[in-house]
Amino acid sequence: MKKLLLLYLVLIVTFMAYLYTAYFRESDGGMNTVTGLHGERDEKYVMVNFLTGIDYWKNALKGFEDAAEALGVSVEYRGSTRYDVHEEAMVLEQVIARKPAGIAVSAINSEALNAAIAKAAEAGIPVVMFDSDAPNSKALSFLGTDNYSAGATAARHIAELAGSEGKVGIITHPNQLNHQERTKGFDETLRAEFPGLELVSIADGKGDQLESEKQALAMMRLHPDLAGIFVTEANGGVGAGNAVLKESKLGQVRIISFDTNKGTLDMVKSGTIAATLAQGTWNMGYWSLMQLFHAHHERSDGMPESRDLGSVAFPLPAYVDTGISVVTRANVDRYYAK
Amino acid sequence: MKKLLLLYLVLIVTFMAYLYTAYFRESDGGMNTVTGLHGERDEKYVMVNFLTGIDYWKNALKGFEDAAEALGVSVEYRGSTRYDVHEEAMVLEQVIARKPAGIAVSAINSEALNAAIAKAAEAGIPVVMFDSDAPNSKALSFLGTDNYSAGATAARHIAELAGSEGKVGIITHPNQLNHQERTKGFDETLRAEFPGLELVSIADGKGDQLESEKQALAMMRLHPDLAGIFVTEANGGVGAGNAVLKESKLGQVRIISFDTNKGTLDMVKSGTIAATLAQGTWNMGYWSLMQLFHAHHERSDGMPESRDLGSVAFPLPAYVDTGISVVTRANVDRYYAK
Repeated sequence: MKKLLLLYLVLIVTFMAYLYTAYFRESDGGMNTVTGLHGERDEKYVMVNFLTGIDYWKNALKGFEDAAEALGVSVEYRGSTRYDVHEEAMVLEQVIARKPAGIAVSAINSEALNAAIAKAAEAGIPVVMFDSDAPNSKALSFLGTDNYSAGATAARHIAELAGSEGKVGIITHPNQLNHQERTKGFDETLRAEFPGLELVSIADGKGDQLESEKQALAMMRLHPDLAGIFVTEANGGVGAGNAVLKESKLGQVRIISFDTNKGTLDMVKSGTIAATLAQGTWNMGYWSLMQLFHAHHERSDGMPESRDLGSVAFPLPAYVDTGISVVTRANVDRYYAK
Repeated sequence: MKKLLLLYLVLIVTFMAYLYTAYFRESDGGMNTVTGLHGERDEKYVMVNFLTGIDYWKNALKGFEDAAEALGVSVEYRGSTRYDVHEEAMVLEQVIARKPAGIAVSAINSEALNAAIAKAAEAGIPVVMFDSDAPNSKALSFLGTDNYSAGATAARHIAELAGSEGKVGIITHPNQLNHQERTKGFDETLRAEFPGLELVSIADGKGDQLESEKQALAMMRLHPDLAGIFVTEANGGVGAGNAVLKESKLGQVRIISFDTNKGTLDMVKSGTIAATLAQGTWNMGYWSLMQLFHAHHERSDGMPESRDLGSVAFPLPAYVDTGISVVTRANVDRYYAK
């Protein structure tokens, strides 16, 4: 009977402990518990872009998913499978109609999605842009590469490889803004920091491998002492790599390319391309979701950390430079798409 | 006895429920629970700056504290009380010696803290810069105002007030980089978007109220039809406001000022200053802590959302533009320091 009484006592204490725990765990802001920053499983955030199947987006989606996992919310991936403005706009409108908690959009065209984005804003659905901006839209912010700064990184890396004296060239897409900025950042950084490195040629590779190869060959023949070429996009990087192989100038003409598709990474691995610049695509996805989560909760919950901010016009940072990293033979294996 | 048995049964079931709850709540990633993004109470993040007592920092510290509360971590506020480079460097070294989880620094001088920041990096303590950058340091990122874009906002707002035709002036600090960028953003945006608005004068207000008043008076006398003045810092804004009152040009010469100290806000409230530009200081603090938290956990925990990223060189977005908001009579009350 004594033992039974003891067991009885233990069970009563346990019962009280249960009530206590349940109470404090459930209460918001209870001092004994940390619930952290989290949403609900049925809170859905959607990533919308174009050419949805290409490798380039994998890491951005991974970042988006990783942030959702950390915050306990759900994500969905949508977009146009083709390079088609109207299809992307249509998919975006469909997504808006289902009233998700937030949408991260990469715009195929800087103007074409403005009307759809305005509809989302009217419906109270926060939209952020990533990778490709729609600057005149109602999107709350843009998360992507600072292309000028990427060009500056290329200039500093080519100087590291080629030394502070010599001739270098650029192969680019002269009519696209992103590429103009990469070129400008490269050029101005050389002038400011490495006056002994002379930019002798800016060629139009047309975003095409063979055309870029042709331009690289012409550049090397005109300037036999050329020390390096910065190619502002991936197809051209492989073309320039082939040109260097054909002219047997490996080790003399250093190629710095852009992005991390398989062809480029293979050439980095073999040493034909000295380095390529990887964009912070994981960051784009991760911090897009983080921003959307904050915008959503500011609107609907008045979360403690944004309550004071709610009525003031700083819903989100206006721009996030998601960074650039230099991929060389030493770290190339990490960049292959999984 | 039967009743006792029933009670007994209830207690046993409760005990099992307790075990079950405790187990699933404690287990990381259990499917029935959301723990969200959170750290530990003894995980301390420190904000370090200079002139620690001024109103300007209040909102940045509030953002830092709000993020800490959301994430369940601790913060501390340190810095030099005076405008003293050596004092700030000394305080920063003291903070580093105590090995906090991360440090957000606003640099009194763009170079003077580099050595201390390098020590933090060696000790594995993440550092981010906010408001005032140290671009050549080992800090992981910078969170602050895009001054060029702030100047562009001022230009668009002055065009809204003054119409698309007329003369405008600037009163600035011509030798400081931040102010040069504000001026450039204003000037280039006028040229590109409002060619009918002519920038007729750029005067040096020396960051001083009386000198700025003198410059504003001279500008209005030389250009009696002047429609607006953009003043790139707060003391000058009040000076220009006084000049407009003295010349009885209220309603004709619109002043756009910068920042939100009390004198400026009072003049916005009374209508002497048409608008002032508030920097996203809450964002600076909030997202600084968010970034430091991620850097800390990437290093020490290998959090799920950054595990794949861990070895790749994207610890954090490189730059966050914390935004600008336009303060007018309509929303001025929200901006007084609390």
